[in-house]
Amino acid sequence: MHKHVCNHTIHDHQCHFGWNRDNPPVIRIAPGETVEFHPVDSSGGQLNARSTLADLNALDFGKVNPVAGPVYIEGAEPGDAIKVTLLDFAPSGWGWTANIPGFGLLADQFKDPALHIWKYDATSLAPAMFGPGGRVPLKPFCGTIGLAPAEAGQHSVVPPRRMGGNMDIRDMAAGTELYLPVEVAGGLFSVGDTHACQGDGEVCGTAIESPCSVQAKFELVKNANLPFPRFTTPGPVSRHLDVKGYEVTTGIGPDLMEGAKAAVSGMIDLLSRRYNMNAVDAYMLCSVCGDLRISEVVDMPNWVVSFYFPRVVFE
Amino acid sequence: MHKHVCNHTIHDHQCHFGWNRDNPPVIRIAPGETVEFHPVDSSGGQLNARSTLADLNALDFGKVNPVAGPVYIEGAEPGDAIKVTLLDFAPSGWGWTANIPGFGLLADQFKDPALHIWKYDATSLAPAMFGPGGRVPLKPFCGTIGLAPAEAGQHSVVPPRRMGGNMDIRDMAAGTELYLPVEVAGGLFSVGDTHACQGDGEVCGTAIESPCSVQAKFELVKNANLPFPRFTTPGPVSRHLDVKGYEVTTGIGPDLMEGAKAAVSGMIDLLSRRYNMNAVDAYMLCSVCGDLRISEVVDMPNWVVSFYFPRVVFE
Repeated sequence: MHKHVCNHTIHDHQCHFGWNRDNPPVIRIAPGETVEFHPVDSSGGQLNARSTLADLNALDFGKVNPVAGPVYIEGAEPGDAIKVTLLDFAPSGWGWTANIPGFGLLADQFKDPALHIWKYDATSLAPAMFGPGGRVPLKPFCGTIGLAPAEAGQHSVVPPRRMGGNMDIRDMAAGTELYLPVEVAGGLFSVGDTHACQGDGEVCGTAIESPCSVQAKFELVKNANLPFPRFTTPGPVSRHLDVKGYEVTTGIGPDLMEGAKAAVSGMIDLLSRRYNMNAVDAYMLCSVCGDLRISEVVDMPNWVVSFYFPRVVFE
Repeated sequence: MHKHVCNHTIHDHQCHFGWNRDNPPVIRIAPGETVEFHPVDSSGGQLNARSTLADLNALDFGKVNPVAGPVYIEGAEPGDAIKVTLLDFAPSGWGWTANIPGFGLLADQFKDPALHIWKYDATSLAPAMFGPGGRVPLKPFCGTIGLAPAEAGQHSVVPPRRMGGNMDIRDMAAGTELYLPVEVAGGLFSVGDTHACQGDGEVCGTAIESPCSVQAKFELVKNANLPFPRFTTPGPVSRHLDVKGYEVTTGIGPDLMEGAKAAVSGMIDLLSRRYNMNAVDAYMLCSVCGDLRISEVVDMPNWVVSFYFPRVVFE
């Protein structure tokens, strides 16, 4: 249940695949109005709380990551920004995390599909049990949130762009104020790909993918001329994770991507050895709660990328 | 003043420049022993609390970043790890931050030297005033901490390596347990480059460079076979910064380094416009307290790097 009553509601069938400036708006709103969105999960409803590996293997990738919308915001023009205040999330109580072959930071190392189904208390948001070990603190957010691009034609939903999209920033949570650069009249806002939680990086390629409804308020900032999205958080962003500190692995060298891979590989080794866990389970666990940070990017020619795993998951 | 009394003390003249397996140890200790180090700051004592831009311009780079040591740990052999527990830091109450031409994430954009001298309360560690605006919460740590490499000869102190070194990880603070891979007999541990605080990334190339004495305990983990350093923090790592939330800018695209540059540039624009601050001052402020994070590294072909600036600095 949501705390607010919005001016408008967008239901799960009012959605689209990919981004296209020619998608007709499902609604037109004035700045200052609020909308409640009911997106399906990133599998597009192909997975559910009883799904198995066979369902994952049968996934039709033409139907993944639908987004609810688009919303036309009156008066928005190229060069403006849409300010989106995320008012509230109402999570469903179930979710899934998968290793999908060919996808993820360590795709070369993890070639077999894997699926974990989560159940959690949607009201208390108590830490969710991970079957292979650990309890993961939850913080619902939307993985995909953005506007339509100026460039004509159909654009894949997978990569994020300067108008936002599949940014998978785990702090797109309740209370955050997001500013998105407008490229087409009305902005054409859509949202989906909701997650019950995720670490910085989303290293295995999926989070706890979980249907949640989302309430948001829309405002207009004329002539903001933003190069990329920016946002403001109303308070601390990781206190649900940090109370016991972190285990941290590093990757050191001249390439940030290689450093990220080394840091995550090091954590998978540590977790799988310490907790007698399959490597792919450790990988999925890292994705839903561990954070990739750039510790230093100036000590030429070697940079340090660190992976922070929250000790509260096991302690 | 320190809380502990250590088994040994290493004074500021017991130092070396760069890493070399043939540096003679200044002390030999048994596992379980403790050492108090008194390194000078990363300028090697060339800057002080009364320094000006002229002193920065006269800096002899052959004498920067001396490290105190090396310490020979009895029984350490290649393949082992040295476990270093950082017991306590005693900061000096002053420090410096500089933009040094040719150095830093945005060296192409910031070509002129700049210097800021900080004074702070070494006992209370109350947030330090930044002349151009803002108050920066402090958390002392050591920027350079590591062992000697197996490869013969003299190696620059600037880049970190798999045995550690100039890692500039802002969580090398009191209570952290660090595991360093041993490559030579005795490990040959050294430490220096102490900072009163820094954000993840150290984006302008310097932190609040500040002399601090450091107390550490040394233990030996046989046959650890670590690929890179790892560490454990005893509790939360950013609560000194996070209480009011963050302003966040992003960089989105196929290259993590370009994403990092875009995110930091965006924050410099935001801070300098909002607080009427010179761009280079905003850049130095970002370096001492803002964090570079990899928000997602899996949504091919575009990654999201975010720069988190703590609102508590201004609010």
